[in-house]
Amino acid sequence: MAQQIATNVHWHEGTASREERHKNLGQKGCTLWTTGLSGSGKSTVAVALEQVLIQNGKHAYRLDGDNIRHGLNKNLGFSAEDRAENIRRIGEVSKLFADSGMIVINAFISPYRADRDIVRQLHEEAGLPFLEVFVDAPLEVAEERDPKGLYKKARAGEIKGFTGIDDPYEAPEHAEIHLKTHEMSVEDSVRAIVEALESRGLLSA
Amino acid sequence: MAQQIATNVHWHEGTASREERHKNLGQKGCTLWTTGLSGSGKSTVAVALEQVLIQNGKHAYRLDGDNIRHGLNKNLGFSAEDRAENIRRIGEVSKLFADSGMIVINAFISPYRADRDIVRQLHEEAGLPFLEVFVDAPLEVAEERDPKGLYKKARAGEIKGFTGIDDPYEAPEHAEIHLKTHEMSVEDSVRAIVEALESRGLLSA
Repeated sequence: MAQQIATNVHWHEGTASREERHKNLGQKGCTLWTTGLSGSGKSTVAVALEQVLIQNGKHAYRLDGDNIRHGLNKNLGFSAEDRAENIRRIGEVSKLFADSGMIVINAFISPYRADRDIVRQLHEEAGLPFLEVFVDAPLEVAEERDPKGLYKKARAGEIKGFTGIDDPYEAPEHAEIHLKTHEMSVEDSVRAIVEALESRGLLSA
Repeated sequence: MAQQIATNVHWHEGTASREERHKNLGQKGCTLWTTGLSGSGKSTVAVALEQVLIQNGKHAYRLDGDNIRHGLNKNLGFSAEDRAENIRRIGEVSKLFADSGMIVINAFISPYRADRDIVRQLHEEAGLPFLEVFVDAPLEVAEERDPKGLYKKARAGEIKGFTGIDDPYEAPEHAEIHLKTHEMSVEDSVRAIVEALESRGLLSA
């Protein structure tokens, strides 16, 4: 109880502002939205980026299938409607995290341009930075990696509507960051994102 | 660009842990769930608490009708099913914020014990602190305050299913914090919550 805030509570009219929250954190909240094929390297880059930011005293949080599909979005399936609602909810939660001051790092295939653009617009309307990160590996490279064995199942017809096989992946046309993960190391990818954050002044407040 | 993290990116295998995130923030993430009648003082207490925490260098974020009903939950109505889903989603988002290291402060009537208990259980299963804050004002006091004119409309039959009038409010039986806002100042209420946070070691990491 080093702080002992309770013994010295002073309150005045008014609401804490976004600027105060972000200043306290020494950064500006924003959303980094990785998008790419299964096996393109989204999760690897997201995990490494989070680690580097946190080791440098910054505040980041990852949203991914593990903490979203089994929680907030556990009542959604894989119909076209549910896939859109999946991304919409993740977009809304990202906006809340960015508003709070966190650097939120998403790792979802998010194959449809229209869905990603809705999330971008949500952020722009709220005055919060949204950086689309195209994690770009050729299909043959992603399929060769096949870390979860999903391409094999999709090719065998055991999974239907699999992105890149029998469902389209719509590549970003104006991504803020473009990572060719079959030509770049993980450190190179992380560096490119950190440079994008620094050049926009997002790692200070 | 004081930091220049990009020039010195070092990455090794492994994922940043909750403990690292929370240590960076100098606090432990947790959820403060205020519950009470419309007009009981939930928002007033939540706003004041956020302000006091932030002025003391802590990191807090409020979820309330303004940023939830028009965003994440804008596709929900007021049927029994939708009300339960409303609280479920807020609970899942709170859990994510607490996991990230934030002190998340909710201000929703959340009248049903079963819904609140589901959110408590979500947190307990994830090993994250959940503090229920009963913002307790007698109905006649809340109705007299009627800050949004909603009781008047409910009494006139213009709003149906209004908590305290023609829909039940199920008071918490084991709230961690009990605030009788008709007998306590806003500063007293904030102090009681901060003491609860400090006594549990949540304001240090």
